[in-house]
Amino acid sequence: MTTYKISELNKVKRGLKRAVYDVEQINHILDAGFVGYVSYNYNDKAICLPMAYGRIENKIYLHGSQKNRMLLALLEAKEASMTIMHLDGLILARSGFHHSVNYRSATLFTSVVKIENHKEKEAALKCVVDHMLPDRWEKLRPMNDKEFNRTLVIEMEIQTASAKIRDVGVIDEKSDIDLPIWAGVVSLKQVAEFPISDSLLPNHIDIPNHVMAYYSKNKV
Amino acid sequence: MTTYKISELNKVKRGLKRAVYDVEQINHILDAGFVGYVSYNYNDKAICLPMAYGRIENKIYLHGSQKNRMLLALLEAKEASMTIMHLDGLILARSGFHHSVNYRSATLFTSVVKIENHKEKEAALKCVVDHMLPDRWEKLRPMNDKEFNRTLVIEMEIQTASAKIRDVGVIDEKSDIDLPIWAGVVSLKQVAEFPISDSLLPNHIDIPNHVMAYYSKNKV
Repeated sequence: MTTYKISELNKVKRGLKRAVYDVEQINHILDAGFVGYVSYNYNDKAICLPMAYGRIENKIYLHGSQKNRMLLALLEAKEASMTIMHLDGLILARSGFHHSVNYRSATLFTSVVKIENHKEKEAALKCVVDHMLPDRWEKLRPMNDKEFNRTLVIEMEIQTASAKIRDVGVIDEKSDIDLPIWAGVVSLKQVAEFPISDSLLPNHIDIPNHVMAYYSKNKV
Repeated sequence: MTTYKISELNKVKRGLKRAVYDVEQINHILDAGFVGYVSYNYNDKAICLPMAYGRIENKIYLHGSQKNRMLLALLEAKEASMTIMHLDGLILARSGFHHSVNYRSATLFTSVVKIENHKEKEAALKCVVDHMLPDRWEKLRPMNDKEFNRTLVIEMEIQTASAKIRDVGVIDEKSDIDLPIWAGVVSLKQVAEFPISDSLLPNHIDIPNHVMAYYSKNKV
């Protein structure tokens, strides 16, 4: 088991029992979604924005316009932080104090470099698209030079990270258990609806297997 | 229609057609969820963390431990930024360049003060719990002094904000429309599963109306 080294930066301070530093578990959280919240400083104000990402091993890829304010700020800072969280349920305790949620969250601390090499840039863009929907990239009209040149791609190598996972039921004070108050869990999950073909699509083009596979995996 | 004033800080730079500054629309985005990504600086590194929040008019409430590193940093900075985003669907275009997602996101820029007044603090905590699940607070065992004193509550008054909403189908290059490539939308949504009573709950306590109302509103 490989784990990220614990430092003041990534150390989980509250809820120590839920702290995770295991690389594989953190990668699992990263691969369960494709939108991360990336933080940057604008005039010394910390701001975060949701960004689509892809992952290859310990590297995260983001893309955007060549003028994207956040990506340019990250390149200047040469480092970034990204947080993602999957909300899994409401924990409805007998007291307000013990209300909580079930979740899987990870925060990454990374270096940042711009990808200049053509092949690496293409591989990173493929990674981002396929992270959103597996096997999508190879089905698409290839990117042209104009699109390619208008797109800025950055590589964020994970230097350290930590995660928190809560996946248990209600934890109440013993003295509250006999109160006539309902307590329990409402699980939450993100589901996909049946794919809707673009209205301009000719009738003979069926929904392809890679799209149906995503739907089958994520439907209710 | 009241709108937030546009400045360099909150101005949407990319995708101008999707920019929203309307207070009511932004409140609607805030009320459609209860977890926001709050940004802060730790040793000049911008980090964001998911936090449960409540809203009353133009004020956002967060709570945590009295020693919560982020809340203490926000109080010192006297300002904060919070972003929330609802992911509504995958936009699967005929080219990688036009792949996108449907979403509703909002970024707030706020002042930050600690709530010291007992009544205001209680109202803020009620607001956070009821924002997660409406009408929950009044059903609970009241907070005791120990819990109350261990909890830090901050009020973030929205100074300015902006949002982006994408809620349309595939937008492809005209020259790509006749390609033999499937394009379309896969809608995504967060759903609630049937409430599960805590195993320690006596059998005679039924799932209450306020919990069933949440389930009915959020089930598939």
